[in-house]
Amino acid sequence: MPVLVMKFGGTSVANLDRIRRAAKRVGVEVAKGYDVIVVVSAMSGRTNELVGWVEETSPLFDAREYDAVVSSGENVTAGLMALTLQEMDIPARSWQGWQVPVRTTSAHSAARIEEIPPDNITAKFGEGMRVAVVAGFQGISPEGRITTLGRGGSDTTAVAFAAAFGAERCDIYTDVDGVYTTDPRICDKARKLDRISFEEMLELASLGAKVLQTRSVELAMRYNVKLRVLSSFEEQSDEAGTLVCDEEDVMESKPVAGVAYSRDEAKLTLLSVADRPGIAATIFTALSDAGVNVDMIVQNISEEGRTDMTFSCPVGEVARAEAALGRAHEAGELNFAQLVADRGVCKVSVVGIGMRSQSGVAARMFKVLSDEGINIKVITTSEIKISVLIDRKYMELAVQALHDAFDLDRAG
Amino acid sequence: MPVLVMKFGGTSVANLDRIRRAAKRVGVEVAKGYDVIVVVSAMSGRTNELVGWVEETSPLFDAREYDAVVSSGENVTAGLMALTLQEMDIPARSWQGWQVPVRTTSAHSAARIEEIPPDNITAKFGEGMRVAVVAGFQGISPEGRITTLGRGGSDTTAVAFAAAFGAERCDIYTDVDGVYTTDPRICDKARKLDRISFEEMLELASLGAKVLQTRSVELAMRYNVKLRVLSSFEEQSDEAGTLVCDEEDVMESKPVAGVAYSRDEAKLTLLSVADRPGIAATIFTALSDAGVNVDMIVQNISEEGRTDMTFSCPVGEVARAEAALGRAHEAGELNFAQLVADRGVCKVSVVGIGMRSQSGVAARMFKVLSDEGINIKVITTSEIKISVLIDRKYMELAVQALHDAFDLDRAG
Repeated sequence: MPVLVMKFGGTSVANLDRIRRAAKRVGVEVAKGYDVIVVVSAMSGRTNELVGWVEETSPLFDAREYDAVVSSGENVTAGLMALTLQEMDIPARSWQGWQVPVRTTSAHSAARIEEIPPDNITAKFGEGMRVAVVAGFQGISPEGRITTLGRGGSDTTAVAFAAAFGAERCDIYTDVDGVYTTDPRICDKARKLDRISFEEMLELASLGAKVLQTRSVELAMRYNVKLRVLSSFEEQSDEAGTLVCDEEDVMESKPVAGVAYSRDEAKLTLLSVADRPGIAATIFTALSDAGVNVDMIVQNISEEGRTDMTFSCPVGEVARAEAALGRAHEAGELNFAQLVADRGVCKVSVVGIGMRSQSGVAARMFKVLSDEGINIKVITTSEIKISVLIDRKYMELAVQALHDAFDLDRAG
Repeated sequence: MPVLVMKFGGTSVANLDRIRRAAKRVGVEVAKGYDVIVVVSAMSGRTNELVGWVEETSPLFDAREYDAVVSSGENVTAGLMALTLQEMDIPARSWQGWQVPVRTTSAHSAARIEEIPPDNITAKFGEGMRVAVVAGFQGISPEGRITTLGRGGSDTTAVAFAAAFGAERCDIYTDVDGVYTTDPRICDKARKLDRISFEEMLELASLGAKVLQTRSVELAMRYNVKLRVLSSFEEQSDEAGTLVCDEEDVMESKPVAGVAYSRDEAKLTLLSVADRPGIAATIFTALSDAGVNVDMIVQNISEEGRTDMTFSCPVGEVARAEAALGRAHEAGELNFAQLVADRGVCKVSVVGIGMRSQSGVAARMFKVLSDEGINIKVITTSEIKISVLIDRKYMELAVQALHDAFDLDRAG
């Protein structure tokens, strides 16, 4: 029988009622003739509670013990989901990561899945079992210890199972009903997309659209797993939600698929840095060692052996960045006249595979912002994305203007 | 290095502060030079919460899924305890049942430990690890599923580890400071025993003294594991608590070691039963099939082919017993004139290995009760125990009078 993977996030299994509702959705697919692999997260709030205990016990915790503790939340949901399905007379059983086994690297709390041998579960399907309920987010290391995959890791578990079992599709049930052209909370014209390409989803995911874990989209793209995002809180048809798929299966012909934003950004500029080979490496190694997540980087034109270096990072990391660069300055590794921090910026991006074939998207974006009187502070581009840093107070205005200008409220 | 097993129950690890306090106790033993195996229960209340979810989801639950869900509580405590010890610079790691592995039977939710290969943990001790923190109450079946050992199972886990590792002693930390001559809540002269024999402890445990799981005492007796019960809430010396040990190591020479009671008993009498071979089997098979836990059984002298049969059971099971016997009567399997139930009785017992060598204990007990005007309704005896059923209203009086009469408030 064809295999379907269904993943339910924390809010979709937050209590016994919601687990029952999710189980009913599973029952619908079983009735269609699928053998189903259900991947579950911990009941919402549970993982945060466990993480809180670990951090309070040991601020610099042993990640192996962190994983042993934190993975327990998914085990509870998996067992309860299997019991719920059994109550509906659907043959089901739960599997913890080590039982499958989901083999991962030893990078505790951020492990990568290396292999999922399908034999055990396939054998059970052969014996009449209709649903394998798998605890998401977890696996087992070569040393036999429990690992976890990092926040949002259950999405990745689901896609990896879909790849390992050659599933027809991987349905990600969550608390939103799909992927939108932009955030409906700040733009009331935001429209749900029926389809989006892997590449676009990847850009949107890493830009802060929290629908899917970035790694899960990478994996789906690599193994060509059809991925569908849909709501566990609505009645569903086969066409519900958003299908994340190959570029050629996306019908829309617009240059831009969506507008993304990241609110709490900061822009830092090192003025008059000695412009010599290796200076960028010095700066960004210092920042990386201090745990600063640098995003955009721009180097201004060099004059008389000195240059200005601008970069962005989350506003919460500015103090750490300043301290790290100050230390490098005092140690004589780095020479600059001044460090200027602007804590009041945000990032707005337009994303679309159509940009590859249609020119003028950047020019149009800059014109739209200019017409609204919004000054652009930093620009970066990739093949299918253009991002700008602007004053935070203009964020909603910029998102709405771009959404209008690129006709995102209309399909086609 | 010699191995010590230390077990901490649910109230001893109820929150992070208590886990820290327990870890300090472990640190004291590590400093003495022991390699320590710590067995932990779930944080108190956690197991009840998990059991509640399972029962609400599926009243006639699949015990395999029950075990998968319920065992997760111990995994959390094991990880947190390992982290706490690491914070104290004590090399420690956690082990879940399947990782050791703790091999059990497949009798889910009431599994028995069959084997604990010590190799993995011993190897780690050899590499410098000082504490192995083991999740109690759980194991792995021959089929690779998670099993649990039944309520109080962590005591049994601890004793089984002590046997498997040839531990010098198995210390059970709990919320009381030892085993008492009787329940201090109903007799203020109750005295903590320094030592008690395995046999006496077994009688007291099965009589309702909830300090230790019966199975753990059986196992300790079989493998001659020195078992100590002590409080996790007090400063401890090497002589603290109560040592459960071989008969020859118990110094006390009194005939009676303790007085136990069970409050909510009921006495049922079948009047004028046809006295033919197999009639007892018919009665008690019917009761067993109905899930009635029959305790004491007395058959009165038979007259003219008919007899009276009296037995006791928990008061909550009387309705089930009446229904089962009524059905057997109607089906013609059983013929009796009347079924009389007395829901107002309790059981009081005196226990002591000294009874073997000292006669007259029963006579003395009956005299004491008679002097207090307490009528005895049923009597049963074993080699080291005498139990009576009496009216429930006399329970405290009987316990106090027997405690006085056998000089239990004084050592020696």
